[in-house]
Order: sequence, then structure tokens, then C-alpha cells
Amino acid sequence: MEICSKCSSPSFYTRRYSGEKFCEVHFKESVISKVSRTISKYGMLKYGERVGVAVSGGKDSLSLLLIMEKLCRKKGLELTALTVDEGIEGYRDEAISNATSITKKLGIRHVVVSYRELFGFTLDKALRQDDRDVSSCSFCGVMRRRAIDEAALRAGVNVVATAHNLDDFVQTFLMNLLHGDVERLGFMSPSYKDGAFPLRRIKPMMELYEEETALFAYLSGIPFQSVSCPYMHEGLRSEVRDFLNQLEAKHPGMKYVLFNSCMEVISHFNISKEKSKPCKFCGMPSSSGICGTCRMARLVRGGV
Amino acid sequence: MEICSKCSSPSFYTRRYSGEKFCEVHFKESVISKVSRTISKYGMLKYGERVGVAVSGGKDSLSLLLIMEKLCRKKGLELTALTVDEGIEGYRDEAISNATSITKKLGIRHVVVSYRELFGFTLDKALRQDDRDVSSCSFCGVMRRRAIDEAALRAGVNVVATAHNLDDFVQTFLMNLLHGDVERLGFMSPSYKDGAFPLRRIKPMMELYEEETALFAYLSGIPFQSVSCPYMHEGLRSEVRDFLNQLEAKHPGMKYVLFNSCMEVISHFNISKEKSKPCKFCGMPSSSGICGTCRMARLVRGGV
Repeated sequence: MEICSKCSSPSFYTRRYSGEKFCEVHFKESVISKVSRTISKYGMLKYGERVGVAVSGGKDSLSLLLIMEKLCRKKGLELTALTVDEGIEGYRDEAISNATSITKKLGIRHVVVSYRELFGFTLDKALRQDDRDVSSCSFCGVMRRRAIDEAALRAGVNVVATAHNLDDFVQTFLMNLLHGDVERLGFMSPSYKDGAFPLRRIKPMMELYEEETALFAYLSGIPFQSVSCPYMHEGLRSEVRDFLNQLEAKHPGMKYVLFNSCMEVISHFNISKEKSKPCKFCGMPSSSGICGTCRMARLVRGGV
Repeated sequence: MEICSKCSSPSFYTRRYSGEKFCEVHFKESVISKVSRTISKYGMLKYGERVGVAVSGGKDSLSLLLIMEKLCRKKGLELTALTVDEGIEGYRDEAISNATSITKKLGIRHVVVSYRELFGFTLDKALRQDDRDVSSCSFCGVMRRRAIDEAALRAGVNVVATAHNLDDFVQTFLMNLLHGDVERLGFMSPSYKDGAFPLRRIKPMMELYEEETALFAYLSGIPFQSVSCPYMHEGLRSEVRDFLNQLEAKHPGMKYVLFNSCMEVISHFNISKEKSKPCKFCGMPSSSGICGTCRMARLVRGGV
């Protein structure tokens, strides 16, 4: 029987890239302390900040909420959960009700915004049209990002934490290279912030493997969603994910090494902050004078 | 029947990422003109230079030799073939005799050096030892690189062309990331040159897909080797290669996009030329004062 590296209980999980073994209690502790170290390492939170957590209601974002609740309580920081209702019939309600019941239990303020109230259409409605030139996930991603910004501004928070993990991070890095979007690497920097914009985004779980966040969720009794998004279209991302998982299985720790390489590459890309211009429709930062959200929303509204 | 984009002959090859179709003649022409454009684009050759081509005797390096012979003849540049005999019984002789007969036919000067004369041992002998801390390919790669430098210096050339293609290039890029060797990205730049060293290395086929160089070799009647290297140990490289080939099959042109992304990333890594120090044993450039070749060779000699 294998023994936890921290106590004499039986171990149930081996962190293959470090060789550490954990019982359930110490595994959960190690996840929380890893998030805490990531936050310190990259200076993600400052004293007196008002923190929002983007909570879709899936296992990753609910794990983040649990962890941030503990860490913010310790640091005396205010915490608000921010949820976006995209308007996806038969899928979104379950996640939102999970989010609502957990925030209630933890006594965390919960701000919910919807595509319908913000943009005048639900995702279901928008995707019924054919004149988009992007995939459903890219479209929804741009709109959701803005919706979270809106929720954050309403809630009066100045930092928004999202549940991206190490796997998401290295996948996105490689996808940017495979799509030729090298200039986007700079936006991946943990210290990137658009100078003109009152919000900062942080990824406190970016140094945790996906399997670790999933296991944390399971051990924390977080409900897993029973249905997947009906519009899910992952294409390239799932090919990249499979490749990296195969590599990791053969070479334990390789995703971690890759993550560090990505961070080093990213540090060579300094995005000039003066580049962004206010969007002429909504005033939010944009690269060309019309932001992606307004461009897409106008297309949809023209057609709905 | 599909028709060549350049003439009215039937096409036998479609360049999937550009949509161009080629008959055999125009395919070969397009490969040669692509190499010529790569050479111009990165300023790989200058007027009056003495050019060496590293010729292992495999299909890639013999294709490069054929192409460089044509291009150098046009530009009035002197060309020498450089071959290294690592000392691998039952494998190397076939390739060297292919190289010899082709250089003879083309009337190209051919300089052959061997591990035995340069280092005092054959690869067969060196690999019989167990105290190496690197794979056979890494060991042989370091020694062969030096052997080519020696052959080049003897031949009096100042530029050495190697047969690396686009696939090799993007594989190496990703492998550097997966190994955490980010500082090596700078060495991949086509304009990288160690300031203290009288040789420049160029990769004129770096913008050609591997399948294109293989097809060029086939159409040019270049003999394919009947045996593989007995020490071949590709591990990670073949996993990366398979992944990229699968991606390319689903998304034609993706390797090409990735190549351009790699080049853009690499342009952010300026290797400081002052970093290299002369090796205290051989005087060649090194990062630490003892070069990799001397470090490895001394280990082997200690044991042989």
C-alpha cells in the first residue's frame, strides 16, 4: 500500500511529475496551496482588491470558487461570483442552478447576467443564423468574455478570476501557433492588462493539471454536469489535447515542462498597451476601433 | 483528369496548402525554385562564398546536393560535398557509396571525414559503452555536427547547407518547447551565426514539406537507402511527427502556418553572440568553456 507523502494515510493519487503521493485530505490541501502559490508568484491579487470569479457552474469554475472563497477569506478580500446565462435551452439551467446553490451555501454574492438582456438575443437565437464567419465556440467566447466584463463592472469588482488550468493554457498556446495568431501570445501573459480598462483577468489555476482540478471537484462533492453543451465544437482543441495527454502518459511531467516553456516564450512578447482604441459603439477597448463583440452582435441583430 | 497548373500535362501532385497542381517536370521545377526563393528571402548565400553541402547519402541530402548544384552553377558559386563516416557497420557504406557516385557524376568535389580519424573511435565503438547520459542520436548528432565543421574547414568552405526540411524544423521547435530548451529557439534562426566561428549554417529546404523532398528524390532517381540506422532512437520526434502529420491531413497547410508562427517566435529570441567562449580543449565555440563534443569524446575515450 502506498502512503501519503504528508501523513501516514493510504495515498490515492500520485502527482506523476513530482512523485508526491497524497491522501484525499492532503491532495485537496495541495491543490489549494498550489493555487495560492500561483497567485503570489504572479502577483495576481493585491491588498484591498474586489475579486470576481467567473462561474459557469461547471466543475472547474465551481472548484475555483471553493478555493478562492477559502483564500479570499484568509486575505480579507471581498468575493463575488459572476455567472453568464448565454441562453442555451436544456443545458444552461442545470449549471446555473448548481452555481446558485453553491454560492448561497457559501454566502457569496452572485451576479447573473444574460446574453438576452445585454445583447438582445440568446445564443440559441444567434446560432440559428448562418452568416457568422466563426465557429459557435469562438462566437460564444467573444460574447461571454464581454458578458463577464459587464457582470464584473456591475458587481464593482476589479479582478476577475477564470478557471483556466494548465491544460487549457498549453492547448491555447499551441493553437495560437497552429492558427498563426502569434500576436495573441502576449495576451496570455499573467501580467497582461489592457491599460485603458478597469478590469484585470487572472487564471489562478493555470499551474494545475486538468486531472487535478477534476479530482478536486470530485472530492469536494461538486456536481458534474449531466449534459454537454449542444453547440460544442472543439475540433483542433481536442486534437491538441489528445496529443498532449498521450505525451504526458509516456513522459510524465512533459505538460508541465511545456507550460514553463510557453511562459518563457510569452515573456518575450510585450503587448504595447497603447495599441488599444475605444470601440466606437460601446467604448470598450478594441484593436481596430470596433470591438469583436459589437461586430458580431451587429451581425446577429441585423439578421434576427 | 487533373491538369498541371503550369502546363497542359496531367497533374500527379497537388500541393494541398496552396492548391497548385503539378506534372512531374513542373513539380521538380517548383521545388528548385522554392529552395532558390528561401535562399534569397533569408540571404543565405552571398556573392563569392564557398558553399559546402552536408551529404549523408540519404535521399534528403542527395536531393539538396542536386538542387544546390543547379543553383550554385547559375550563381557561379563553388560547391563541395561534405560527408561524415560515423563508423556504423552494415549501414553507412551504402549511403557513402551513393554519395560518392552522385558527386562523381556531377563533378563535385567530395570531402569525407570519419569519426575514427577525428575522434579516435567509431560510433559503433562509442555506443558499446554505457556511461553516456544522452541518447544515441543526441550523442551522434553532437559529434556529427563537429565532424561536418571539420570537413568544412578542411574544404575551405564558409557556408554549410544541411537538408533540414519544414517538418524537421517545426518538430525541433516543438521538441525544444517540450524539453524546456527555450534558449535553443534562438539558434534556430536562419540568421543565427556564432560571431567567433568562421562557418555559417543554412537550411535551404526549410520551407519544403518532407513529402515534397521525398517526392523530389524519387523523381530524380535518387536511390533510397535499403536499411535504417541500427541506432535509430526517435522517441519524442516521431510522436511529434505523427501528431503534425495527422493535423496536416485534417487541416491542409497547418504545418506551413505553424512554420511561420515558429519563425515569428524565433525572431524574438536574439542570441547574444558574446555568450560563446572558446573550448579549452579544442578552441571551438562553447557556452561553458568545454564544448559538447569534447565533453562527450573524453567520456568515450576514457572508456574505450
